[in-house]
Amino acid sequence: MRQGTALRGLRLGSRLDIIVALPRVKRWAVLSQLDSSPDQPHGELTIRVVAMPSDTNANGDIFGGWVLSQMDMACGIAAVERAQGRVATIAVDAMTFIRPVKVGDVLCVYTDLDRVGRTSMRIHVEAWARRFHSRVREKVTDAHFTFVAIDENGRSRPVPAPER
Amino acid sequence: MRQGTALRGLRLGSRLDIIVALPRVKRWAVLSQLDSSPDQPHGELTIRVVAMPSDTNANGDIFGGWVLSQMDMACGIAAVERAQGRVATIAVDAMTFIRPVKVGDVLCVYTDLDRVGRTSMRIHVEAWARRFHSRVREKVTDAHFTFVAIDENGRSRPVPAPER
Amino acid sequence: MRQGTALRGLRLGSRLDIIVALPRVKRWAVLSQLDSSPDQPHGELTIRVVAMPSDTNANGDIFGGWVLSQMDMACGIAAVERAQGRVATIAVDAMTFIRPVKVGDVLCVYTDLDRVGRTSMRIHVEAWARRFHSRVREKVTDAHFTFVAIDENGRSRPVPAPER
Amino acid sequence: MRQGTALRGLRLGSRLDIIVALPRVKRWAVLSQLDSSPDQPHGELTIRVVAMPSDTNANGDIFGGWVLSQMDMACGIAAVERAQGRVATIAVDAMTFIRPVKVGDVLCVYTDLDRVGRTSMRIHVEAWARRFHSRVREKVTDAHFTFVAIDENGRSRPVPAPER
Amino acid sequence: MRQGTALRGLRLGSRLDIIVALPRVKRWAVLSQLDSSPDQPHGELTIRVVAMPSDTNANGDIFGGWVLSQMDMACGIAAVERAQGRVATIAVDAMTFIRPVKVGDVLCVYTDLDRVGRTSMRIHVEAWARRFHSRVREKVTDAHFTFVAIDENGRSRPVPAPER
Amino acid sequence: MRQGTALRGLRLGSRLDIIVALPRVKRWAVLSQLDSSPDQPHGELTIRVVAMPSDTNANGDIFGGWVLSQMDMACGIAAVERAQGRVATIAVDAMTFIRPVKVGDVLCVYTDLDRVGRTSMRIHVEAWARRFHSRVREKVTDAHFTFVAIDENGRSRPVPAPER
Repeated sequence: MRQGTALRGLRLGSRLDIIVALPRVKRWAVLSQLDSSPDQPHGELTIRVVAMPSDTNANGDIFGGWVLSQMDMACGIAAVERAQGRVATIAVDAMTFIRPVKVGDVLCVYTDLDRVGRTSMRIHVEAWARRFHSRVREKVTDAHFTFVAIDENGRSRPVPAPER
Repeated sequence: MRQGTALRGLRLGSRLDIIVALPRVKRWAVLSQLDSSPDQPHGELTIRVVAMPSDTNANGDIFGGWVLSQMDMACGIAAVERAQGRVATIAVDAMTFIRPVKVGDVLCVYTDLDRVGRTSMRIHVEAWARRFHSRVREKVTDAHFTFVAIDENGRSRPVPAPER
Repeated sequence: MRQGTALRGLRLGSRLDIIVALPRVKRWAVLSQLDSSPDQPHGELTIRVVAMPSDTNANGDIFGGWVLSQMDMACGIAAVERAQGRVATIAVDAMTFIRPVKVGDVLCVYTDLDRVGRTSMRIHVEAWARRFHSRVREKVTDAHFTFVAIDENGRSRPVPAPER
Repeated sequence: MRQGTALRGLRLGSRLDIIVALPRVKRWAVLSQLDSSPDQPHGELTIRVVAMPSDTNANGDIFGGWVLSQMDMACGIAAVERAQGRVATIAVDAMTFIRPVKVGDVLCVYTDLDRVGRTSMRIHVEAWARRFHSRVREKVTDAHFTFVAIDENGRSRPVPAPER
Repeated sequence: MRQGTALRGLRLGSRLDIIVALPRVKRWAVLSQLDSSPDQPHGELTIRVVAMPSDTNANGDIFGGWVLSQMDMACGIAAVERAQGRVATIAVDAMTFIRPVKVGDVLCVYTDLDRVGRTSMRIHVEAWARRFHSRVREKVTDAHFTFVAIDENGRSRPVPAPER
Repeated sequence: MRQGTALRGLRLGSRLDIIVALPRVKRWAVLSQLDSSPDQPHGELTIRVVAMPSDTNANGDIFGGWVLSQMDMACGIAAVERAQGRVATIAVDAMTFIRPVKVGDVLCVYTDLDRVGRTSMRIHVEAWARRFHSRVREKVTDAHFTFVAIDENGRSRPVPAPER
């Protein structure tokens, strides 16, 4: 695990290095060009909400935590549906915010069931922003969230066989 | 980066495999014993809030997204302080939720400035829960959040030299 | 308008009369059978949110006002997109709640631009609930919301020609 | 019902036609002059709240859905009181927003029990705004909300005889 | 007033003594009998809201802070009206919670302008609860809040002469 | 303590007199110089939160009620810990807001158990603001909140002996 952490650090570090190395790159949104984001969202549309003034931080920006919260909620919907009952988030994959979300944007969160273990489910999630007063749609971030199916006492339980 | 993803998958997978392999492990909270979490929180206490009934999901559990949101807010405080101005979340490290947070728990979020690039800051963050009606304090999760300093137009700007 | 009101009263009254006249009809949800609701939602999916415990009234039910609020927000998204700018709600059509929404349901709001006047837009809206822990999807209600395009000073302004 | 819908459309349409026909009418608030709103609110004051910044949409306007939500809540108070127990919204009458509500305004919602069926109650509701920094009080909208009395299982139940 | 404050201080102290000294007093709500609360609210109805599940603490009780917040908001309305502009809370008098507020209660807050200084206003405030599913109305608490009129820069400014 | 309360009363009265008497005192924040507030917070850090845009009143100021609410919540945490169970606020001491809290400030609430009666606990509480974009930390207000330990039915119960 020590090694895993080191590798993650490296990956993240090298992206940050690019920012450091290119003084002419002014907008952090430009980072998105480094990302092989497809033009189309992947997965099923699971949550679609408007970013409201009450979701802003002290600078009037929609803060990352609100986006994370919506992504967790979307994955929770997908996990509950598959596990046919109560679930809990147990892991979040490394993720990069490619672009900011702004007040008035419609945040669209897409989920896709990636892998099912005995008691756990790994869900791919993408967040896209439909910009205010326009039809432009841009990818904000993607990640994997892992959930575990739990019973009434909060203990892990097997994920049932898929519905027909 | 392909390799990085694979490694992350492996790491996450191996942890999940453990769940799969040990049918007697009933509580996913037991996962924490696999974690080398120290007995004491690391970093400076940055946010300390009560988990309220209004922060629960449909099952009455405090959902992971609320915890993520508080962690992002805490890292944002640390980043604003260091950058002396506006910041935006650009990356979150892989993370594991060791234990759940419950209504009435006091969530304590500790942050520590890990590394400063030209325009970015990497912050280590730990979330601990002080259980309701008790003095027991347990680690919930830890992660690294990376922020970039931005100017009035949302463009990245250099992080200023540290204050004396 | 007096006549319009009378007719509305009559229409509503006759539905209510049915409740009164059929003492065996115990569940008000049965009302839905009187409705010619199609099996498929009509319009474009505009908002998709989870009904949370914090959206309940004192009895723990999701209250009608929350659903109305989501419908207005969805129509607002559609109206802003068409009017390419600021809008305000000026009218809501008569509507019937066919079934209740419960905590954990995913509320899906579909909108369809119905008619465009010089400064106003009439939008058809349907709310559907995807039940918690299931794939069952049921229509909750539908209505028409009318918005007017407004300028910076809150005065009505012409709706621009549609985008190509 | 098809006819009812047509008539409603007509009524709404004719009001909208007036907007279209009078190009000099710049402010949609002027619409209120077409309305025979009395100078005094009708009914009992049931809810009185301040419109806060957290109730605004992306343009900083108090959105119609928030007003609808407060009206539903007020009618719910009146219905609970009459039904001496749990209730659910089943219908909303057509309504027009005469004037906007702004941040800082005090929204006053008045209700009046209009008609009681075997299991249902029809409530007249008016929303008035007391403008920020002034004593001016203006009618925002009025409507009828219909509620049904429900029991513990969500089934309709008879409205009890009125209290003495 | 000097004397009044002293007496309130005395009253508070002796009340606590009574709790300590009278082991047979089981319900703290009984405390209210020690209070000379009149049967009718004093002042003008300024806020009237429903206590919702989202306003509860971890035990499902409406917490005192929510009531305090509504009282401050009500006094703020009265102060803004008198000062014809921006105000800030600068003092709260000692106060006792006579009875708890419960989910579903309608909280009615009454205010009365008590005294106007050059830049400050002292407002008497009473909070009453109309119990859920009943017409019973009970006093919850009363207090005095003091506000100062402030200008655009947050500096104190004279309270203007009263309107005619 | 009898004397302490009397002195606080006196202090409050004379403070208002000072505002009236000194027309050159423009900033009410200057009031803080009259206060013998120590440079260091007293008590244990119990809540630490960011003041967000959604906590503002119509003027964009963080309103006093939000601060009061956080103080009550902090004292509640301390009281629950000491009483090992459910508690309710029964009294708040007179208090003065020395300085305002602004959006982006980190509000730090410190509590200290002051006195324990048979069923009640008196808690000293201080609120400090760490200013946005700076390390400046200023005292906002202090007070005493009194809580009573209650059982499942809301009746007062003895506070248990302290834990070892």
